Amino acid sequence: MSKECYYIGEQSLIFPRDVYLISSASVVGKKEGEGPLGSAFDMICDDDKFGEDTWEQAESTLQKEALALAMGKADIKPENIRYLFAGDLLGQNIATSFGLMDYEIPLFGLYGACSTAGESLSLAAMCVGAGYAKTVAALTSSHFASAEKQFRYPLEYANQRPVSATWTVTGSGAFLLSAKRGNVRITGVTTGKIVDMGIKDSMNMGAAMAPAAADLIAQHLEDFGRTPLDYDKIVTGDLGYVGQEILINLLKRKKTDISKVHEDCGILIYDKDKQGTGSGGSGCGCSAVTLSAHYLPKLEDGSFKRILFIPTGALLSTVSFNEGQNVPGIAHAVVLEHADKEV
Amino acid sequence: MSKECYYIGEQSLIFPRDVYLISSASVVGKKEGEGPLGSAFDMICDDDKFGEDTWEQAESTLQKEALALAMGKADIKPENIRYLFAGDLLGQNIATSFGLMDYEIPLFGLYGACSTAGESLSLAAMCVGAGYAKTVAALTSSHFASAEKQFRYPLEYANQRPVSATWTVTGSGAFLLSAKRGNVRITGVTTGKIVDMGIKDSMNMGAAMAPAAADLIAQHLEDFGRTPLDYDKIVTGDLGYVGQEILINLLKRKKTDISKVHEDCGILIYDKDKQGTGSGGSGCGCSAVTLSAHYLPKLEDGSFKRILFIPTGALLSTVSFNEGQNVPGIAHAVVLEHADKEV
Repeated sequence: MSKECYYIGEQSLIFPRDVYLISSASVVGKKEGEGPLGSAFDMICDDDKFGEDTWEQAESTLQKEALALAMGKADIKPENIRYLFAGDLLGQNIATSFGLMDYEIPLFGLYGACSTAGESLSLAAMCVGAGYAKTVAALTSSHFASAEKQFRYPLEYANQRPVSATWTVTGSGAFLLSAKRGNVRITGVTTGKIVDMGIKDSMNMGAAMAPAAADLIAQHLEDFGRTPLDYDKIVTGDLGYVGQEILINLLKRKKTDISKVHEDCGILIYDKDKQGTGSGGSGCGCSAVTLSAHYLPKLEDGSFKRILFIPTGALLSTVSFNEGQNVPGIAHAVVLEHADKEV
Repeated sequence: MSKECYYIGEQSLIFPRDVYLISSASVVGKKEGEGPLGSAFDMICDDDKFGEDTWEQAESTLQKEALALAMGKADIKPENIRYLFAGDLLGQNIATSFGLMDYEIPLFGLYGACSTAGESLSLAAMCVGAGYAKTVAALTSSHFASAEKQFRYPLEYANQRPVSATWTVTGSGAFLLSAKRGNVRITGVTTGKIVDMGIKDSMNMGAAMAPAAADLIAQHLEDFGRTPLDYDKIVTGDLGYVGQEILINLLKRKKTDISKVHEDCGILIYDKDKQGTGSGGSGCGCSAVTLSAHYLPKLEDGSFKRILFIPTGALLSTVSFNEGQNVPGIAHAVVLEHADKEV
């Protein structure tokens, strides 16, 4: 029994054995398909109900299809996946429960708001890295219509949106992690604390989440003894234009300049001028589909050697918001590196 | 780097290094304090709002106090806890987020409905067992009034309840898991799949969850090569009277008789005749406070050598229920054994 430990610094981990991200898939709605990353997604559905009766069932179908595609690419069957680490934004995780039950795979249900893509990848990597499984899946989803209904107003109300508001991405990203060698390796994680800076505006999630991202990035760099330029990209989940500016400024105050390497999935996924998406995209699905469609291919072919992927979440519900509570944030970071499959 | 693997059978795990449950605490409301286990709880609050303005804040306070007590018993400070694994029943886990943020400990937010006590203990044990942390905390909560508001009707409606309905426990149980030797050891986990038997009655959660518990117990015994009598007790979370009967019958069909050793936290926590609690107690807090107050002392002093603890969850929301979806169930099992602290 090894007595070595794998925690480093204040909030980070490395793994006892190598963890590879061997396959992924992205399924999105019509609007995401019309955006700048459109050609990179695996599946774009013109019908945002995905053939289902309700928005919630549509979101469940997103998850089901994303996992099916990720398994198909790696020629892996459900019975070869030991655990699912999955979550979504809806109350009681119903998109996940109803989307994944047919696979009959042991499930760890997660909730980290829009940081769930980072949380699920972290726990999945910890699981494979410990020798608890050969292959596991991490997946998350969000859907514009089910999220509007859950958090704001049903679409039929046609309420107006401030420019600081983000646009919930309709999409699901699924990832298979394995002890089997692949072209992308997960080499560490940094797990976030809740950060509450007193933001009360649920229409300005970027501002609510940026302080959590700033704290986490600073801690990550300290834990690993790295600088921002040790990464080809430092990628946040869905801070949008408003949150990006706050993040960069908060880190400058800590003498850390990430402006040369920072990108945000919420900014990349839509063309804000042509698509009217306000501050950018958001939702668990935003960072997940952008990682799968945009960043992983570049890590696979070696054009990126190492990125830091940091989905960010705003921890509110309509109940907490209506009761006057703040909107605290959280962020979870995953280090992804190019690996040579054949050594 | 060890290449040994730790998964056994179809759905179970053991750990590379020993994991101990070194401290726990239970905080409950007035009704639970008046029940059969009343004298065993660490804290009973006569005011079910726990001095707060809302039911949700009251539930947050439950978690905060339970963790404070568990830390106090072990003389451990928040900065010595590497991770929190926590969740609750409310949409977007707000009881957890607002209850635990002041501790500033990295958080993995979980959702497994009333199985969350099992999910959080499983992931926490996997984390310590892998050498990812010296000490972590697992905790869950539920609150009768916040749950009624979330899932059924606000209390002011005074709606009637069928006898199959369970009574959501107001309570939180917190557990500290550590690599440091203690009197109770976690020696394995079995992680559940979602099981949907077509139940549609949200007032009969016991029937919805019993099939998931039956499948999990059968799989656990097969994975570990054990019989029911290898356990002093096989303890489900909150099946209640209705669910217990279904569970025992389902397992008899699989040629497994657990009737001699089965107990259910939902049955133990209230006196159904005196307290009018229908089929029994339920909620994430039900199994957590019963484990802490009733079972752990018996494992610590050696009167029980080994128990199987299986919190059970019903994966529904008001949205899924109103849209006519079934109420699927899930269950997660944890093996707890007496250990001699001094060897």
